[in-house]
Amino acid sequence: MIGSFSTALDYLGVAFFAVSGAIAAVERRQDIVAMLFFGAITGIGGGTLRDLLIGAPVFWVHRPGYLIVCLVASALVGLSRGWGLNRRLLLWMDAIGLSAYAVVGAVKAADAGLAPPISVAMGVLTACFGGVLRDVLSEQPSVLLRREIYVTAAIAAASTYVVADGLGAGRFYSVLGGMLAGLILRGGALLKGWRLPILNPRPSTDAGG
Amino acid sequence: MIGSFSTALDYLGVAFFAVSGAIAAVERRQDIVAMLFFGAITGIGGGTLRDLLIGAPVFWVHRPGYLIVCLVASALVGLSRGWGLNRRLLLWMDAIGLSAYAVVGAVKAADAGLAPPISVAMGVLTACFGGVLRDVLSEQPSVLLRREIYVTAAIAAASTYVVADGLGAGRFYSVLGGMLAGLILRGGALLKGWRLPILNPRPSTDAGG
Amino acid sequence: MIGSFSTALDYLGVAFFAVSGAIAAVERRQDIVAMLFFGAITGIGGGTLRDLLIGAPVFWVHRPGYLIVCLVASALVGLSRGWGLNRRLLLWMDAIGLSAYAVVGAVKAADAGLAPPISVAMGVLTACFGGVLRDVLSEQPSVLLRREIYVTAAIAAASTYVVADGLGAGRFYSVLGGMLAGLILRGGALLKGWRLPILNPRPSTDAGG
Repeated sequence: MIGSFSTALDYLGVAFFAVSGAIAAVERRQDIVAMLFFGAITGIGGGTLRDLLIGAPVFWVHRPGYLIVCLVASALVGLSRGWGLNRRLLLWMDAIGLSAYAVVGAVKAADAGLAPPISVAMGVLTACFGGVLRDVLSEQPSVLLRREIYVTAAIAAASTYVVADGLGAGRFYSVLGGMLAGLILRGGALLKGWRLPILNPRPSTDAGG
Repeated sequence: MIGSFSTALDYLGVAFFAVSGAIAAVERRQDIVAMLFFGAITGIGGGTLRDLLIGAPVFWVHRPGYLIVCLVASALVGLSRGWGLNRRLLLWMDAIGLSAYAVVGAVKAADAGLAPPISVAMGVLTACFGGVLRDVLSEQPSVLLRREIYVTAAIAAASTYVVADGLGAGRFYSVLGGMLAGLILRGGALLKGWRLPILNPRPSTDAGG
Repeated sequence: MIGSFSTALDYLGVAFFAVSGAIAAVERRQDIVAMLFFGAITGIGGGTLRDLLIGAPVFWVHRPGYLIVCLVASALVGLSRGWGLNRRLLLWMDAIGLSAYAVVGAVKAADAGLAPPISVAMGVLTACFGGVLRDVLSEQPSVLLRREIYVTAAIAAASTYVVADGLGAGRFYSVLGGMLAGLILRGGALLKGWRLPILNPRPSTDAGG
């Protein structure tokens, strides 16, 4: 049951990232195939990186269910015919995907016997990778550069899981705690504009900056 | 002989993508080394992703012939001193590379025992990856976003192969059918401007759109 | 002792690339977390690609020391509070990282039994990948497109090592020679504006060129 909870979260992260990718394609006024393609890439991108880094078989390659979830989630975006789709919804889908992926990445890394700081890094990298891929491919300004709480939310989600699990909270509560930590921080950024202070208050001297 | 047909197609895809990468470097007014570098990256990029995803040894790492083909193809572009090189030729090289890579990707995935939909996805992803890499690295607008038939042609090529092979057409005819399906669709896009309808006919409200 | 020299160079490359990534984040006026994130990605990016291509376990996943070096190097950039940080320093850090990574990549590939040209390619690809990743993620014009000696310096570093080692110079002197070759060429580009001739002296006909 605990394993299936983690698997459910995995599908959740994949589906929500897929929706955010499909919305990005609709926003860029793409066709149905581009929408399914962006949905699939965004949905499976982070987990693909995670599995390559861990040295595990890439999760979706041997289980077609993940790809199907991406395509169905993206198709639902298409069927909605733009109803209520906008960048704001994309960001909330992305927030849920980010939190779920950060926790699942840390779970999978810890299960593979990696050290706690590496498990956190794995959760963070793979949670951020799907969105980065989506933004680079759709030529939108990357969410990484928007000076919002984003990577920080992934760090909070992954490290809450790792710490709670290390303290013996059990997987269910650790996963739940990680998800909540990520959602609260990222939600605060989206709703309240939370951000960290910048490091370089001087105006940039670089023309491209 | 059937294995060598598939291998020939593999070299074909690599060489044509390499030429498209080298043309992109010439277009961006780069030097000879950048030209060889872009040629090599574009030529081997898609197959590298395919092998990493399947979990196979990366094809060019143990067989230097592929890298040499990339460098020779790119050098020929340089020797032509810009004669007849332009974005149009790049797009046709890219079209041949796309079709060959989509079929070879599906062949290799199917041979590794993957499920038919996964084999199609593998062909599509790896066929599109070389061109995306070339466009991102040379900071050109990505072919993915041009609302032309591109991913669709890769889907047609890979799924024609998978379906024909599944129906018992034999590898030779299945590969040939896949190549033709990809070339016809992508060629139609280049010659006739074929495109799929867009999903979001409203003008985008996003300033960056 | 010879093994530890190569390991020291490895940490050197990782640390200097991490500093260049952290400077890029400061330049883009990012917060502390983004700085650590960019530092880590840039520091470990090239070596991650190298290990994936060779089929070796990803180096930092099982040895947390590398990630800690990245975070400490990036934090030092933050503690400097912008003192003396600018694009010029970033480019010099990048030059040292490039040379070290090119040599270490070639060493690791040769040790894995790969053919000499493949070892050179592996050094070059992985040396350039960290900087490309940093530039793409921070949306700066890629160093690849600046028509300076960059890839060429990586080729010089990696091939000097491979040739010297093949001629029996011993690992210590081969590594040293490779480092020097890379630093001299890249340093000449930075100090004297060395560049290779461009291939296409005609003004580009492409609007985006």
